[in-house]
Amino acid sequence: MMAKVLINGRAEQQLSAADRGLSYGDGLFETIQIASGTALLWDAHMLRMQRGAARLKIPFDASLRALFHQDFLSLLQSSSTNAVLKLTLTRGVGMRGYKPDPQATITRISSLTALPDFTDQQRHGITVRLCRLQLARQSVLAGVKHLNRLEQVLARSEWDDPDITEGIVCDTEGKLIEGTMSNLFWVANGILYTPDLTYSGVEGVIRNALISQCRQQSLCEVRTASYELSQLLVADEIFVCNSVINILPVVTLIVDDAAPKAEVYQVGPITRALQKMLHNLYLKDAPH
Amino acid sequence: MMAKVLINGRAEQQLSAADRGLSYGDGLFETIQIASGTALLWDAHMLRMQRGAARLKIPFDASLRALFHQDFLSLLQSSSTNAVLKLTLTRGVGMRGYKPDPQATITRISSLTALPDFTDQQRHGITVRLCRLQLARQSVLAGVKHLNRLEQVLARSEWDDPDITEGIVCDTEGKLIEGTMSNLFWVANGILYTPDLTYSGVEGVIRNALISQCRQQSLCEVRTASYELSQLLVADEIFVCNSVINILPVVTLIVDDAAPKAEVYQVGPITRALQKMLHNLYLKDAPH
Repeated sequence: MMAKVLINGRAEQQLSAADRGLSYGDGLFETIQIASGTALLWDAHMLRMQRGAARLKIPFDASLRALFHQDFLSLLQSSSTNAVLKLTLTRGVGMRGYKPDPQATITRISSLTALPDFTDQQRHGITVRLCRLQLARQSVLAGVKHLNRLEQVLARSEWDDPDITEGIVCDTEGKLIEGTMSNLFWVANGILYTPDLTYSGVEGVIRNALISQCRQQSLCEVRTASYELSQLLVADEIFVCNSVINILPVVTLIVDDAAPKAEVYQVGPITRALQKMLHNLYLKDAPH
Repeated sequence: MMAKVLINGRAEQQLSAADRGLSYGDGLFETIQIASGTALLWDAHMLRMQRGAARLKIPFDASLRALFHQDFLSLLQSSSTNAVLKLTLTRGVGMRGYKPDPQATITRISSLTALPDFTDQQRHGITVRLCRLQLARQSVLAGVKHLNRLEQVLARSEWDDPDITEGIVCDTEGKLIEGTMSNLFWVANGILYTPDLTYSGVEGVIRNALISQCRQQSLCEVRTASYELSQLLVADEIFVCNSVINILPVVTLIVDDAAPKAEVYQVGPITRALQKMLHNLYLKDAPH
């Protein structure tokens, strides 16, 4: 399946070279899983984009939300479609200079691509490695899924081995933050841990859903704070999650590329319970 | 003068919505002053882009440099043209996912716009203010003129007053770094100071030229280190610089928007000497 693209609702593949999304990464994006024609956790994705837009002072209102939804329906091949829907919002075309033009019209890009199959990794787990790159601490942008993603590009370019699915990144103070494309969780003594994202990282829709569902369903205690790598190393279970991969158990963690030995983990009962919980949450999600 | 644009050497205004420059800000740019048909400090701009490309592992070789130069000649209206030439280099079109595709072909964008007239501000000085936004510390990206510029967008959106030309930004540890679009210098007791850019900021071509020329010509002692705002406040002279504005003396510094009083500075002898030195450096610059 080639990407199908809509730019401002029109079937086009190209946009202006003067778009501030290109000039400055001045925008946001969402990556949404489409399962049997349903955009999973649509409301949560729209809410995150709206919050990000508020942070960047990019206009976002109910009509924009409706237009993105219209794009989705128009891109949808059939009610049995499984796919990845990517929605991008930029501040629009601008003149040279950082100052946002209040008269500018935002740019809306919606595209549909094939959903990769992660069934095997969801079942048997993956290998991850610790990245050398450390994320900068910037509370003004932390949590937001914006278009300034050079840190992720550099972290992901550290390895080529196709057997390594993800890289774990810490911040410049050495605190655990997330994966290059996912959020990080681990279990120790029956408690679920995930790093606080006040200073770095992206607040994943799946991350937030897991935290709130765990609390609502009293499935297990969840703690979010600032953690060191040493705490991850002694975990009973580790997993990473995002809207496309869902929950991938980590069975091997390579801390030092040069060292022959890697930490090995089990796919534990809490990871399995959360995979099931996420599956049920998806089933409950109203069709869109 | 409307922008004239070349994309990969062709007169086009649009590029692929799947370009990684848009998706991730995965690229670099240069802003070059064209005076009477000459691209000022061309070699220094090309060298900076080459170094940035090495940092981001984007291919950059002599043939790319030649292609950018060919773009410039083709955009040039006449040998008497004064303009701003913006050159952008991205990693090119990519699939979804942060991992750079080694097979990807880079995207080259060259555009020519009108040169704003800063004569009056160069002569009489400008008003600047201190920004609330603090720059993150990221040594891997510091110095590089990359396309991840949300911090500059947010800093520049802090004020609307057209009488304020520039904003000064510190890093998250409160150290002085630069202006939103310029580098920062000041003079105290005959010594020229400018912040070290190991952790944040853009290494301006004019900044580096001023530092090296001052040292070569023994015009004055130059110090680059980590400095506090308090040191700027007691300066004898302050100026900001970049390739379009050249050197703009700062005569008013607003530290607190809410406070009625502002620090006032003179346009001093060292600032004037450096303006003259930069002018002479431009004259020496071989025509391109």
